[in-house]
Amino acid sequence: MNRTNLCSSLAAFALVAAVSIHAEENLPPPGTMAAVVAASKADDWRPLDPERTLYLDLESGRVVFELAPLFAPLHLANLRLLSKAGWFDGLSINRVQDNFVTQWGDPTSQRPLGKAEAKVSPEFEREWTSDLRVTVLPDGDVYAPTVGFLEGFPVAGDRARSRIWLTHCYGALGVGRDTAIDSGNASELYVVIGHAPRQLDRNITVLGRLVLGAELLAALPRGSAPAGFYATAPERTPIKRLRFAADVPVADRLALEMMRTDTEAFAALIESRRNRRDEWYHLPAGKIELCNVPIPVRERR
Amino acid sequence: MNRTNLCSSLAAFALVAAVSIHAEENLPPPGTMAAVVAASKADDWRPLDPERTLYLDLESGRVVFELAPLFAPLHLANLRLLSKAGWFDGLSINRVQDNFVTQWGDPTSQRPLGKAEAKVSPEFEREWTSDLRVTVLPDGDVYAPTVGFLEGFPVAGDRARSRIWLTHCYGALGVGRDTAIDSGNASELYVVIGHAPRQLDRNITVLGRLVLGAELLAALPRGSAPAGFYATAPERTPIKRLRFAADVPVADRLALEMMRTDTEAFAALIESRRNRRDEWYHLPAGKIELCNVPIPVRERR
Repeated sequence: MNRTNLCSSLAAFALVAAVSIHAEENLPPPGTMAAVVAASKADDWRPLDPERTLYLDLESGRVVFELAPLFAPLHLANLRLLSKAGWFDGLSINRVQDNFVTQWGDPTSQRPLGKAEAKVSPEFEREWTSDLRVTVLPDGDVYAPTVGFLEGFPVAGDRARSRIWLTHCYGALGVGRDTAIDSGNASELYVVIGHAPRQLDRNITVLGRLVLGAELLAALPRGSAPAGFYATAPERTPIKRLRFAADVPVADRLALEMMRTDTEAFAALIESRRNRRDEWYHLPAGKIELCNVPIPVRERR
Repeated sequence: MNRTNLCSSLAAFALVAAVSIHAEENLPPPGTMAAVVAASKADDWRPLDPERTLYLDLESGRVVFELAPLFAPLHLANLRLLSKAGWFDGLSINRVQDNFVTQWGDPTSQRPLGKAEAKVSPEFEREWTSDLRVTVLPDGDVYAPTVGFLEGFPVAGDRARSRIWLTHCYGALGVGRDTAIDSGNASELYVVIGHAPRQLDRNITVLGRLVLGAELLAALPRGSAPAGFYATAPERTPIKRLRFAADVPVADRLALEMMRTDTEAFAALIESRRNRRDEWYHLPAGKIELCNVPIPVRERR
């Protein structure tokens, strides 16, 4: 197949910036995501907030996450304590299970947590209060009565119960736990690197979402021990440091902005993905599943 | 591939073989997939047919696919001609796009196709005839009226139109094409390595499904050129050879068997995944999405 095809599909986090930079010389086809991005206005975007942006620095580069205080404020606070203390620095990625998760933390469970709590109350779901502006998707979901986006996160909810929760789409950042539901404390984190394991929803605290650098976690060698853990210590990928953006010097921060998910531009983006207008598509699906909606990210203008 | 490697490459499909081997000493919890597998009978399994089993041999090991003559007989025949002629040998993996596909073929489009056809009629869907025994999933689907399993493949269908097709779940093996719908010929193949891009369903010919060795394709470095193509030739992963199992010496074949998907055992497996009984789960989902149902594979007994 030629490089032009199969997908001009901008998978999540893809080539939005490059496309829009060249928009004036080379207009993208009408109705495509590239056209939606090219037509977007400055206030269709929002900068990442350093107080809830997390950098995982590896030898191979930086992975960027956006955290969700709306859903996991307690875990976020505990993670802030750990990261401020440099708790993760020098630890490692210990588990990569194909089509499931990449997970990191202390492989020996020996490092003292310092000021951070060892147990944090589960934040598996929250109340769906009337102030939450959810952009609801029109095509339903296998797992939940309602799905959509809230402040840049793919969410599911049950209006009848007034409950809403973060979902395990590709790139979801979660808090590892043992069998006890309060045994997670954000010292063990994982990110989804395969088909959305939605059966985890409401069983574990989701803390945020990957924004940039997915390939640094998804292309790691899979572990050969049960559940994808590495069988030997040298296989583990060292963590240089894990920090909130607010805790690193301004010069060391990335200036990124995300497309807002409560705008007409984002509604147009959803439609551009429900019905693909790229020339390659023979039969637009006319539907879209929650975890197939990309949220564009680009360098801040 | 020795036994250790085989078991370790079962990651995507869980550790079924290892679990069942130890079932007598260490019974898995009732209602779990491990328990279903442990309780299965010999005729709940079927051997892979060498006439429709494909081996992609890389330096890192062997990737095994099962092909679907029910859905793509013309492409399968063309691929057989190509593989018998050693057409793929010495070519390479040219594209790895994160959360999307790994793709291989001739990066220069120069190698003559020999006896194989350059254009093959699209096999995007087929008639849903009354002889097809589909195991229908009970929880619906965002993209199609009906989904389930047919002879080991995740399928979607529309009974009102009497049409059925293979879906783009993780591990789906597809035939790259250009914009013209008959421009695919199986000389360019891709496998899904991310969240199911179901918008591709019925837009491209799906030829089969990955059975073993997913990690050899999913953990490759992502390409930095547009759409995940490698920017330079040295980044490409060489292909040692691609062959149907029937065309390699018996001693070089893997003896594998898959759980049948039209049995009570498989129905029990689906239920074990709809409602996870593993002690860890706090709230079983009560639902399952097509691409989250694993099909166990193991060494042939």
